[in-house]
Amino acid sequence: MTLPVPPSGMIDGAVHRFALRAYYEDTDLSGVVYHANYLRWFERARSDLVRLIGIDQRAAIDSGAGAYTVSDLAIRYAAPARLDDIVLIETRGEEIGAASCRLVQRALRDGTLLAEMRVRVGFVGPDGRPRRQPADWRSAFARLIATETP
Amino acid sequence: MTLPVPPSGMIDGAVHRFALRAYYEDTDLSGVVYHANYLRWFERARSDLVRLIGIDQRAAIDSGAGAYTVSDLAIRYAAPARLDDIVLIETRGEEIGAASCRLVQRALRDGTLLAEMRVRVGFVGPDGRPRRQPADWRSAFARLIATETP
Amino acid sequence: MTLPVPPSGMIDGAVHRFALRAYYEDTDLSGVVYHANYLRWFERARSDLVRLIGIDQRAAIDSGAGAYTVSDLAIRYAAPARLDDIVLIETRGEEIGAASCRLVQRALRDGTLLAEMRVRVGFVGPDGRPRRQPADWRSAFARLIATETP
Amino acid sequence: MTLPVPPSGMIDGAVHRFALRAYYEDTDLSGVVYHANYLRWFERARSDLVRLIGIDQRAAIDSGAGAYTVSDLAIRYAAPARLDDIVLIETRGEEIGAASCRLVQRALRDGTLLAEMRVRVGFVGPDGRPRRQPADWRSAFARLIATETP
Repeated sequence: MTLPVPPSGMIDGAVHRFALRAYYEDTDLSGVVYHANYLRWFERARSDLVRLIGIDQRAAIDSGAGAYTVSDLAIRYAAPARLDDIVLIETRGEEIGAASCRLVQRALRDGTLLAEMRVRVGFVGPDGRPRRQPADWRSAFARLIATETP
Repeated sequence: MTLPVPPSGMIDGAVHRFALRAYYEDTDLSGVVYHANYLRWFERARSDLVRLIGIDQRAAIDSGAGAYTVSDLAIRYAAPARLDDIVLIETRGEEIGAASCRLVQRALRDGTLLAEMRVRVGFVGPDGRPRRQPADWRSAFARLIATETP
Repeated sequence: MTLPVPPSGMIDGAVHRFALRAYYEDTDLSGVVYHANYLRWFERARSDLVRLIGIDQRAAIDSGAGAYTVSDLAIRYAAPARLDDIVLIETRGEEIGAASCRLVQRALRDGTLLAEMRVRVGFVGPDGRPRRQPADWRSAFARLIATETP
Repeated sequence: MTLPVPPSGMIDGAVHRFALRAYYEDTDLSGVVYHANYLRWFERARSDLVRLIGIDQRAAIDSGAGAYTVSDLAIRYAAPARLDDIVLIETRGEEIGAASCRLVQRALRDGTLLAEMRVRVGFVGPDGRPRRQPADWRSAFARLIATETP
């Protein structure tokens, strides 16, 4: 018996792509996806990206090493997503600092832009204070950016 | 360029299987998945099942034909799911009536039961009143049950 | 300047009552409140009840004493809630055990039943294992039931 | 028997204030409120504001007049909110246009800034296209800004 697998994105040069489908839970009475839920979608894609470049978030939290947290974000809604839509989330690194990363994420349906977000995620310790991200995590992110095709 | 695809389940005899991953959005401060979020997971699996047997929920809503809605459910939480867990949702039909279906759904991680839910979904018109489900929808569900291996 | 206060319920004999309003975030594309969100509403009411009888959940979590977690529940949806509805949540204790409590919760709009839920919440330690609830917590719950008017 | 009432904010000059409490559903495994949930909180405050200035969103949706939808937003997270925190949401109008409004919203706990958001909400018809907001809605918003104390 073959079992289904959970969604997984893929890294293509400097772009991470992740696909998801819009469900009932994502919509509101206006018939389209509730604006706050795009942030959940983008966060799923970042978690997937982080996992693909070899970072174990749960182990880092459990060991007290720290965790990524969102510092600020700006999002523009271009077109609404609807029930059953297949949505592609593209994530690109923009800047990797000692304690934070800046990413650009886009949600698309068949090439149509639905929403675009710029987000800064900081690394924080269990006390919630900013902390340098682990060196190998930072390198992993840096490699992602470096592979950008011209 | 190959694009990632959204998660899709599969039907194996009378069982539908759907896989998902637990994300930050699913957890609460106790470190495990918030109890209400299993209902979202089970609903995703039902939406996928319905799609696989050829039912277009969005078209039915848009055309005013009607929609499935949850009438009642009972869920037992057996073990907690945690961040990054791969969770398999199994759905089995139990009874197909004129206007409603009864299903049993289980969430498992590596064969360990996390939660089990019995749910009744009714078909309702745009006015929210119970309505006979479309004959071909009912047949599709009935075939699913009928294929159960002894 | 008078500041608004967050919602607070009240205990009347053996019944706890808590009011809330249905917002965009609670609805789905069918135009009514998404079924899983009633569980969030009922949990808000339980948190309020627990706070009113003098239990500090956050301190208990922080100190490692433990926390309440949902073991099982059964909910029946009687009528849909819609945007802007004022919903009254009534909670009654049904049984107080050493490590768990059984409660009955109802959501009403102007006296009309929207949903009714029976839920068992267990007390667990930081390791997730069942644990006797603190004696004074148990007494507080027991007093609530004992005050039931005949 | 006195019944509890749902939370309601108040308008003080050009500021709308709304209070809420952080519940389990709002937190994630990091122990603090999940970043996307601030958007839900801010939306609750906007719904309350709109209701207080005499706008009936549900009637407008039901009649096909239209609805407000978020066009873009930028949010900065300053400090985390935790379980049981009482959070005050302040909303100020910044600019009222023909088809959209720009607002600034802040979440505070005992005077400490938790998050600040600038958001533009547009008025759209049932087809999702921008539409002039009803004249009296626009006036109501304009009056709110005009009452700003120097």
